[in-house]
Amino acid sequence: MTITNGVQFIQGGTVTTPAGYRAGATRIGLKTIGEDALDLGILCSDVQCTAAGVFTTNRIKAAPVVLCQRRLENARAQALVVNSGCANACTGPQGASDAEEMASGTAEKLGLPVEDVLVASTGVIGDPLPMDRVRAGIRSVLLSEDGGHSLARAIMTTDTKPKEAALRYSAVQDGPEFTIAGIAKGSGMIHPNLATMLCFLTTDAAVAPAFLRTALKRAADASFNMVTVDGDTSPNDSVIILANGLTGNQLIDADNTQAEAFQTALTEVCIHLAKSIARDGEGATKLIEVIVEGAATVEDARLASRTIAGSSLVKTAIHGSDPNWGRIVAALGRSSIPFDDSALDLHVCDTCLLRSGCAQRFDEREVARLLDKPEVLIRVSIKSGGASATAWGCDMSPEYVRLNSEYTT
Amino acid sequence: MTITNGVQFIQGGTVTTPAGYRAGATRIGLKTIGEDALDLGILCSDVQCTAAGVFTTNRIKAAPVVLCQRRLENARAQALVVNSGCANACTGPQGASDAEEMASGTAEKLGLPVEDVLVASTGVIGDPLPMDRVRAGIRSVLLSEDGGHSLARAIMTTDTKPKEAALRYSAVQDGPEFTIAGIAKGSGMIHPNLATMLCFLTTDAAVAPAFLRTALKRAADASFNMVTVDGDTSPNDSVIILANGLTGNQLIDADNTQAEAFQTALTEVCIHLAKSIARDGEGATKLIEVIVEGAATVEDARLASRTIAGSSLVKTAIHGSDPNWGRIVAALGRSSIPFDDSALDLHVCDTCLLRSGCAQRFDEREVARLLDKPEVLIRVSIKSGGASATAWGCDMSPEYVRLNSEYTT
Repeated sequence: MTITNGVQFIQGGTVTTPAGYRAGATRIGLKTIGEDALDLGILCSDVQCTAAGVFTTNRIKAAPVVLCQRRLENARAQALVVNSGCANACTGPQGASDAEEMASGTAEKLGLPVEDVLVASTGVIGDPLPMDRVRAGIRSVLLSEDGGHSLARAIMTTDTKPKEAALRYSAVQDGPEFTIAGIAKGSGMIHPNLATMLCFLTTDAAVAPAFLRTALKRAADASFNMVTVDGDTSPNDSVIILANGLTGNQLIDADNTQAEAFQTALTEVCIHLAKSIARDGEGATKLIEVIVEGAATVEDARLASRTIAGSSLVKTAIHGSDPNWGRIVAALGRSSIPFDDSALDLHVCDTCLLRSGCAQRFDEREVARLLDKPEVLIRVSIKSGGASATAWGCDMSPEYVRLNSEYTT
Repeated sequence: MTITNGVQFIQGGTVTTPAGYRAGATRIGLKTIGEDALDLGILCSDVQCTAAGVFTTNRIKAAPVVLCQRRLENARAQALVVNSGCANACTGPQGASDAEEMASGTAEKLGLPVEDVLVASTGVIGDPLPMDRVRAGIRSVLLSEDGGHSLARAIMTTDTKPKEAALRYSAVQDGPEFTIAGIAKGSGMIHPNLATMLCFLTTDAAVAPAFLRTALKRAADASFNMVTVDGDTSPNDSVIILANGLTGNQLIDADNTQAEAFQTALTEVCIHLAKSIARDGEGATKLIEVIVEGAATVEDARLASRTIAGSSLVKTAIHGSDPNWGRIVAALGRSSIPFDDSALDLHVCDTCLLRSGCAQRFDEREVARLLDKPEVLIRVSIKSGGASATAWGCDMSPEYVRLNSEYTT
């Protein structure tokens, strides 16, 4: 276990680590990569959960997103079914009916009311789902208490690694311990807000519906909405949390003492998964962390850090370990947040390249050597106020272009 | 000569084609590429001109941009001096003084008041100009009436080709003929608004200052501001026009009969140069033209077409001749303009892929073959109104990444 901000990450933890969750996955041949690639999975709780979701801001919304948004109005769910390889987006009325059928097939299998089943899809846009195979797949999924690992693999598309996290925390000293966990996918079309990404979170804590929704939105804003891989967003992005309350704790609400600890733990899990997404960006060889400090507002700091992390020219420079700091400053300038350029400080890998707007002499070879690492830190201080934010991205390699030139054909 | 919209492009025309302009360039060793690469040049008119400019919207503005913006307040100029290889951006008070000295050295050489000399720079951000070489270079430039071709080469950075255009037009039937011409550079850091690009335009028409400013802004909005290469903008972008009035025509003003013809001709020259920039984007192998029709407003149409043309996933798909139309629709959705997705039509290379929001059957191989051409047309109809716009971009190749990973080091 590693301890961060007082919360403890569980080695090998996954979405089924909290009490009362089971998951499983199977292969129905939706993905062209990997002969044995899992591509359909189910997550379910032993009891009905309080649930919340945040979804893509793209005007084009895939059928499962529309379904989940409608179904989460009552803040309740008990299971979800997900496939990769086909996004079920831009599929018209047939797509809506297919998403509905994924839910009803899963509800029937699990003996649940269909209103308690959510649906998610990720993959190529525009293709219809092969429903015969989907139906058979749903029937064949085996659920188990360590099935989260399979589910994490089943939602991968161009991801090279599954993304899982779980942490245990105690809201009060010597109080009951809760677990929050999640899995995520996403490596291309990743950009604020939400990117082509899926994230499913679970907790065994009991959480009030309104607070769960607020806490999820806040956690997503500080994590998934601060990740950019390529500036594109997708019609399928979904972050969903289930809280089954099996720990039997007092209900966590905005105004009770456990709220802050729950928020911290949830945000930590989301940041962990968000960084995993950035690190595994398509073709990425490096994680880029951009901190903007001294902004007038958090919104400014977020906008500026995301703009820098998302700049193709910054990303290619970092790929080449090139200390071309002018591109960082140009991206900051393009973000249109107010600042005085004669007050600007810039550190790259803890080397000061710009102080009070003036270029500093530095050893280019030394900084190039520092940039030639799996994690690169860019820190910008604009001295306009007290707000700061962190964004995560990745370098851009020729492999990114190769992957995306050859995706469907 | 080719005739477009009633205006005639002049074969081999350049910025010195209009009457009364001379230009020249020399090499002072600012660029590392090409042993004999020209990198410093001067453009001047025989007489004082009405002048106007549009400049980068980036908050970080290079010293020469600040100088030009101040100097163009009186709408007058007679010459400009420009260098490539060094942007003179993020260079503090020294940079401002260096830009001033480029102007004064040029004014002295030409016997002009320093207030009538404009300055532009493009290249690496943050490096100081080697002023000894700049001063000597300014003295050594030889000006001639066909020197526009040398000047077009001298402003190139990663451009693979000079970009020049000139056209002749007559505002009234059998009236006097005017010439409008221009040169441009830019191939990376190209994005609305204005990108790392320079464009210098000349005309021998007499144009009223206020109308010249308006006409330039309108022409730039329909051309340079509709080009995107990589989503990044630079601190140096400048589009400057000089109008010396040597044709002796009646002054062209907003409310006289020649205004519309002048606007059309100016916009045509700018679009021609803008397309040259997109076609020569860093690592580009294809020009992508994106037309969005049926938008509620021109602003919506422009935003949507630029978002599609700027999407990394669209650009990489086009590079691979991959008819992955979901990415086009997802980029449109991300642009956040209002539309009804069940009314959406999409044509790629004149093949209908989506009609009224429904995917159409198409021959993937045939469309892939059509995409494997130097010019690719994407046409989106959203049926929300009567406005349309065209944006230009280019595909993204591994060469783009290579170029930008190795630029300074």
